[in-house]
Amino acid sequence: MVYNLYSYICGYIGVALSYVVPSSIKKAIDSSIDKIYTGYIRRRFSSFGHSVIKWKPFLLVGEQYITIGDGTVIGKNIQLTAWKNNGKDPEIVIGDGCLIRENTHITAINNIHIGNNLLTGTNVLITDNSHGQATYEQMLFEPIHRPLYSKGPIVIGNNVWLGNNVCIMPSVTIGDGAIIGANSVVTHDIPAFSIAAGIPAKVIKQNNE
Amino acid sequence: MVYNLYSYICGYIGVALSYVVPSSIKKAIDSSIDKIYTGYIRRRFSSFGHSVIKWKPFLLVGEQYITIGDGTVIGKNIQLTAWKNNGKDPEIVIGDGCLIRENTHITAINNIHIGNNLLTGTNVLITDNSHGQATYEQMLFEPIHRPLYSKGPIVIGNNVWLGNNVCIMPSVTIGDGAIIGANSVVTHDIPAFSIAAGIPAKVIKQNNE
Amino acid sequence: MVYNLYSYICGYIGVALSYVVPSSIKKAIDSSIDKIYTGYIRRRFSSFGHSVIKWKPFLLVGEQYITIGDGTVIGKNIQLTAWKNNGKDPEIVIGDGCLIRENTHITAINNIHIGNNLLTGTNVLITDNSHGQATYEQMLFEPIHRPLYSKGPIVIGNNVWLGNNVCIMPSVTIGDGAIIGANSVVTHDIPAFSIAAGIPAKVIKQNNE
Repeated sequence: MVYNLYSYICGYIGVALSYVVPSSIKKAIDSSIDKIYTGYIRRRFSSFGHSVIKWKPFLLVGEQYITIGDGTVIGKNIQLTAWKNNGKDPEIVIGDGCLIRENTHITAINNIHIGNNLLTGTNVLITDNSHGQATYEQMLFEPIHRPLYSKGPIVIGNNVWLGNNVCIMPSVTIGDGAIIGANSVVTHDIPAFSIAAGIPAKVIKQNNE
Repeated sequence: MVYNLYSYICGYIGVALSYVVPSSIKKAIDSSIDKIYTGYIRRRFSSFGHSVIKWKPFLLVGEQYITIGDGTVIGKNIQLTAWKNNGKDPEIVIGDGCLIRENTHITAINNIHIGNNLLTGTNVLITDNSHGQATYEQMLFEPIHRPLYSKGPIVIGNNVWLGNNVCIMPSVTIGDGAIIGANSVVTHDIPAFSIAAGIPAKVIKQNNE
Repeated sequence: MVYNLYSYICGYIGVALSYVVPSSIKKAIDSSIDKIYTGYIRRRFSSFGHSVIKWKPFLLVGEQYITIGDGTVIGKNIQLTAWKNNGKDPEIVIGDGCLIRENTHITAINNIHIGNNLLTGTNVLITDNSHGQATYEQMLFEPIHRPLYSKGPIVIGNNVWLGNNVCIMPSVTIGDGAIIGANSVVTHDIPAFSIAAGIPAKVIKQNNE
């Protein structure tokens, strides 16, 4: 990146702007956009508390099947999708006080129940379904057209912390207070008050109650 | 996130907007932007079918070396880069009916051939090259200035499904219908009709034809 | 994605635009926005060389504790946060000539020192802290309200290359010239001139000086 005259001019325009528009004003504008956007979409949801979805998601589908509690903040660039499948209504419930970070993807055809105070890193995946069941016959088809299949619902307890890029796969229950290390793929249940990590995630520390 | 009076006002502005601008209109606008943007960039490509690249990518380089088929959708925030190297033209071919999700990065100095109906999760990496060959002499230099090196081309068959954050490393062939689990790093060939996962990815299920 | 008449019209508008607005102009505009934005925020930092932070980050916090050298480029959608903790000033130092890609998250309550010429893939995490110490008592609380804890500072040498989605955990030192494979989680020190990969990252090649 060469710093030529043109670059200097752009830079000085920015510096000048910083004297005219204080960062507090800019933050208020950014925050207002998120709140106006949230107001714009909230009526579509099954229930939507005093929470914020930041402008703007990559994809929102099936908001009428999604419940969001109070005090939850959902970051930019998320995908939040509930797909009706074979006539069955899906359900996604997100509790109170959650912080779900940017680039996260939550997708249900069955049931995803997230308790209170979930904290996620960026780019987390929580899915109760997959594109087909990985049989030879299905693998001959386009993955996008394989029948969606749910091995089972997902239950995430209270006060759970998921690291960056964690993937929660179908039919998994994660107990209260559990911590999942970054880049882990969770394919089996994780008990309460434990730490798990790896692909697939294994418990590396278990606190006793 | 405190819900004060100002927040309520922003929220009600958004709710009011939702009565004036139905979400169907907003979706049509979003979709139009993607299509106008695709029209804007399509002439630069070697060949570009009836496909869409959503506005806007992080980085497009070497479009004249890139072919994209029909019915393919490429999400926001992608990097799609074909770099001429040592006088050799690179090539990236992406087939028909692919769904390549947000934040994905495909980069070639050699050859990446992707068949039809590829489905990716978000944030996938497909690279046929690396910054140098990891010798002591090269490690003394800035990685960005090490000579780009390709161990070999990448071939991805038809109907392949790559989970979130999957990384396909140089000189890898992935057979038709294969499924790669989330967060895997693929460093060796994966046979057709198999499921592979892990770092490095190992076959965990093989369907017979 | 159906290609109906409306889609064709949008596409042709885009093609028409591509004759009116050459891509070189569009690139210059994009680059100007990044430089103006950088000018807008640079005064807040402890020190900020001839570098660029692309518009716009997900989150900037504690810029007064952050130093950025010359010739460094930081991509879009990053989080760069230095949090004052228990009265102790944090510090983040990023050297010269670094390329820190999109979606990366660097967060300190203690000290993160990054040398020159760091190259990262997208979506890297570098953190010197965690939400609490994973005791049973703390796991009863919301993770976001657990006291931030730093096991130790992070030191990243010169000419280091971190692959996509790499997570560098607290109290880790990475030696000069080291390469960390994609999707790795680094929980222990990595010696200079080595390659490490996996969860947790282990050295898979060591070059001798």
